[in-house]
Amino acid sequence: MTIEGSVARQISRVLRLKPADNITLLDGVGGVYYAQIVEISAQSVLATIIDRQTAINEPSLRLVLASCIPKSDRIEYIVQKCTELGISEMALVQSQRTVVRLDESGQEKRLVRLRKIAAEAAEQCGRSIVPKLRGVIDFAELIQSIGSYDLSIIAWEDEARQTTLRDVLRLNRQAKSALLIIGPEGGLTHDEVEASVSAGAVSVSFGDRILRTDTAAIAGCAAVMYELEGQL
Amino acid sequence: MTIEGSVARQISRVLRLKPADNITLLDGVGGVYYAQIVEISAQSVLATIIDRQTAINEPSLRLVLASCIPKSDRIEYIVQKCTELGISEMALVQSQRTVVRLDESGQEKRLVRLRKIAAEAAEQCGRSIVPKLRGVIDFAELIQSIGSYDLSIIAWEDEARQTTLRDVLRLNRQAKSALLIIGPEGGLTHDEVEASVSAGAVSVSFGDRILRTDTAAIAGCAAVMYELEGQL
Repeated sequence: MTIEGSVARQISRVLRLKPADNITLLDGVGGVYYAQIVEISAQSVLATIIDRQTAINEPSLRLVLASCIPKSDRIEYIVQKCTELGISEMALVQSQRTVVRLDESGQEKRLVRLRKIAAEAAEQCGRSIVPKLRGVIDFAELIQSIGSYDLSIIAWEDEARQTTLRDVLRLNRQAKSALLIIGPEGGLTHDEVEASVSAGAVSVSFGDRILRTDTAAIAGCAAVMYELEGQL
Repeated sequence: MTIEGSVARQISRVLRLKPADNITLLDGVGGVYYAQIVEISAQSVLATIIDRQTAINEPSLRLVLASCIPKSDRIEYIVQKCTELGISEMALVQSQRTVVRLDESGQEKRLVRLRKIAAEAAEQCGRSIVPKLRGVIDFAELIQSIGSYDLSIIAWEDEARQTTLRDVLRLNRQAKSALLIIGPEGGLTHDEVEASVSAGAVSVSFGDRILRTDTAAIAGCAAVMYELEGQL
């Protein structure tokens, strides 16, 4: 295995490791690698993998939550709860009706705080991987990513076809990766939902009661994990 | 139908309704009755039912959440989220390791505040029924109620038999009423779990990751609704 970039610099310059030293590497998607360094330079590290383990308490399903930024501290609650529920990644999304608008420094500040919450939640629930937090991304950018998941679900309160979350999950039990898109307080626009569906997402109704965005995100992740992973 | 007690007094004395007037009555478990008054006195009202409807946006499953009182404001979050998720009732429970101890006036104050949160959440999500909040009850009292549900589930992180929530729910799809018991931060004791199981509850594991009590309550209710009601 060849390691480059900032991790290589950290191994060579910060940790000052040498050939024959052992390292443990996380691939960020559930794998833990135990490796021995063979060659080392400031730019790259060549290592032999001694052992590979699946990370502890990590689901095999790769669940990514894309949540439009809700008001107030609800986003923090979503990050904490969905980390416990085993999401791999969370993207903060800016949709047409997203009320919260963050400038660049506001985004960075928010992400730093949310990453801390995710790290604490991962530690508390015994996960070895901290979910990646990305953002803020445009809805258009989110749509472009839809094709890269086995299953992409968009929660829509106006879903007319009455396709339920359970119908869709049961038809996709083989999915190894899933994207769950949750709109902002004001809802997603018809255009946003249509564009998502055109890109391959399935629009579903969560049920009769209108859930708040944080409830929808948390209960939605719980249902996806329950059906596709077999546990919460 | 004969109406007695405080509702009869309200109809006759407060609303001052007369025979032939129409009334709408909620039975508190999902039924809405449209009726016409036939006879009226201060103590009782005789009315003919004209129509009966199932309350709007109410699940047919009767889900009762029994949650040991968690620290801080987590209980408020549980009430809000689980009301949206369609619980019929919530009992605040005092178990052996429950840290929060409320005296009588503290309990009453807490319940008043929680009932307000439940009412607001019901209105916000479009439910016609506000879940009942009871408490604080002893764990022994909770155990006595186990027999009155089609299915009683107790979430236990030390569940050794590896019975999962999904296994149990799938074996009990016909259940019309369910009780979900969630322990306190310090966990339930072996004795408490054993006594619950002796009374007819099934002890289940929620999965590999240790969920906080509020996450367990919310994700647990979501999973029960998802499987037994078919929607969140």
